Amino acid sequence: MQMKPDKNIQVARTQLELRQCIQAAKTQGRSIGLVPTMGALHEGHLSLVRAAQRECDFVVVTIFVNPTQFAPHEDLDKYPRTFDEDLDALSELAVDLVFAPDQEELYPHGFSTYVLPPAVAAPLEGQYRPEHFRGVATIVLKLFNLIPAGIAFFGQKDYQQCQVICHMVKDFNIPIEIQVCPIVREADGLAMSSRNRYLSPEDRLRALALSKALDAAVAGFRQGIRDCSTISGYMDQILRQAGVTEIEYATVADASTLQPIGCIERRSVALIAARVGTTRLIDNALLVPE
Amino acid sequence: MQMKPDKNIQVARTQLELRQCIQAAKTQGRSIGLVPTMGALHEGHLSLVRAAQRECDFVVVTIFVNPTQFAPHEDLDKYPRTFDEDLDALSELAVDLVFAPDQEELYPHGFSTYVLPPAVAAPLEGQYRPEHFRGVATIVLKLFNLIPAGIAFFGQKDYQQCQVICHMVKDFNIPIEIQVCPIVREADGLAMSSRNRYLSPEDRLRALALSKALDAAVAGFRQGIRDCSTISGYMDQILRQAGVTEIEYATVADASTLQPIGCIERRSVALIAARVGTTRLIDNALLVPE
Repeated sequence: MQMKPDKNIQVARTQLELRQCIQAAKTQGRSIGLVPTMGALHEGHLSLVRAAQRECDFVVVTIFVNPTQFAPHEDLDKYPRTFDEDLDALSELAVDLVFAPDQEELYPHGFSTYVLPPAVAAPLEGQYRPEHFRGVATIVLKLFNLIPAGIAFFGQKDYQQCQVICHMVKDFNIPIEIQVCPIVREADGLAMSSRNRYLSPEDRLRALALSKALDAAVAGFRQGIRDCSTISGYMDQILRQAGVTEIEYATVADASTLQPIGCIERRSVALIAARVGTTRLIDNALLVPE
Repeated sequence: MQMKPDKNIQVARTQLELRQCIQAAKTQGRSIGLVPTMGALHEGHLSLVRAAQRECDFVVVTIFVNPTQFAPHEDLDKYPRTFDEDLDALSELAVDLVFAPDQEELYPHGFSTYVLPPAVAAPLEGQYRPEHFRGVATIVLKLFNLIPAGIAFFGQKDYQQCQVICHMVKDFNIPIEIQVCPIVREADGLAMSSRNRYLSPEDRLRALALSKALDAAVAGFRQGIRDCSTISGYMDQILRQAGVTEIEYATVADASTLQPIGCIERRSVALIAARVGTTRLIDNALLVPE
């Protein structure tokens, strides 16, 4: 284990170092909170860290750009890596431990066991990124096994991912609680994302259409509209008017199963995935009948 | 949780009851050993229990006929269930806890997350029972999550299963040690199996050919034979001479990957699967160069 002298933060690079730190925390009877990330940290991630610190004695943040959740044509190589800045931000929050292994540490030669994710992984992202949730579920399970946390914190921004993880935890009887924390947005409404930095100034403006479309969905819902095709129509119109035409989905689904619905009768969610320039963005908003 | 008054043994039927018993054992600082079974216990299972008792303070035996590891045409419905006798045997050994949930407790409505087993699951059994190890790996992962044991005990009789579990434990970073215990045999050499009770007296005699074929493989190996097709030829001949003609495989493989090999240069294993009457039997023997 490495104490970064200039950063004032503990960093474990290997499972062995990790185990030693965790063992020490457990011996002291401290409750462990886990915040898994791929680095390139923004306010969204930091809000998860703060939530973890409110509820747990010892907070572990993992930084690992997980290769198995990227398809060959996706942005694994150019995914932003800002390790030094990440450590500065986590040090400022006085995070107890950062686990930042290299690829070989978590996927050594011969690795071949995966999680076949639950049914909730199949629609939406599952249609456009078919192997994505297999990789997500696998790395999350590995991190849960490496770090015996009582609570793990995820952002609602990756709504379907949260559902995949919750269903996996239930199906596999994993002894951990999942807390889903609210989406953190820029002042103008854009959901924070590590991928926002890819956006050109022009695309950055256009990208606002996602949150605006979701605002319209929520406004329509609050005015009593329950027909999902009407709400999807609103979202589609706002996206296209802003010049966001590469829409993968802009739809309303059951909040737990993510299956398409015709009419909002129970807890539901409006979800959008669209390309803005070369950047794929996602966002969502809950629609909860009283 | 239920203390069987006539059996003098603690039986948990639900996850809640299980958690309470486990919590009590952990509070007392007792090390936990796990012996997963499908019931219909024989000396092979009991040898695992004794091994667990030698190494652990608190031994949990699970009894659960796992539906997800049976194909639709297989013997799930007629798989032997001898719960009362099983409890008697475990009570005699003073096992600390039996976990015997019903199907709904472990596979409630909506269950849909599975383990995609490691590469070692693909050959041999994987060719003849394509979904089998998915079901095995899934239930074993669930039991590992439900019962935080330091060591889990499995029998070498299910050699490939042991390898699947060991590879899964490594790939998923599961904090448990796997101990593989020797095959227990009847006096005449037949490997103990819950399925042996299906054998007619005539088939019971014929079934001896499996262990005899493996004896011949080991004898040949000890005499210096390293060519695998020669050794497979011996096994095949002995099986056929005894009237065991429905041979699924009688082969030599790498002991860790279970990939076919031409010549024994490192730790290897001879494995047989064959039908005797309507009963499918498996057996194996290690071939370890000095």
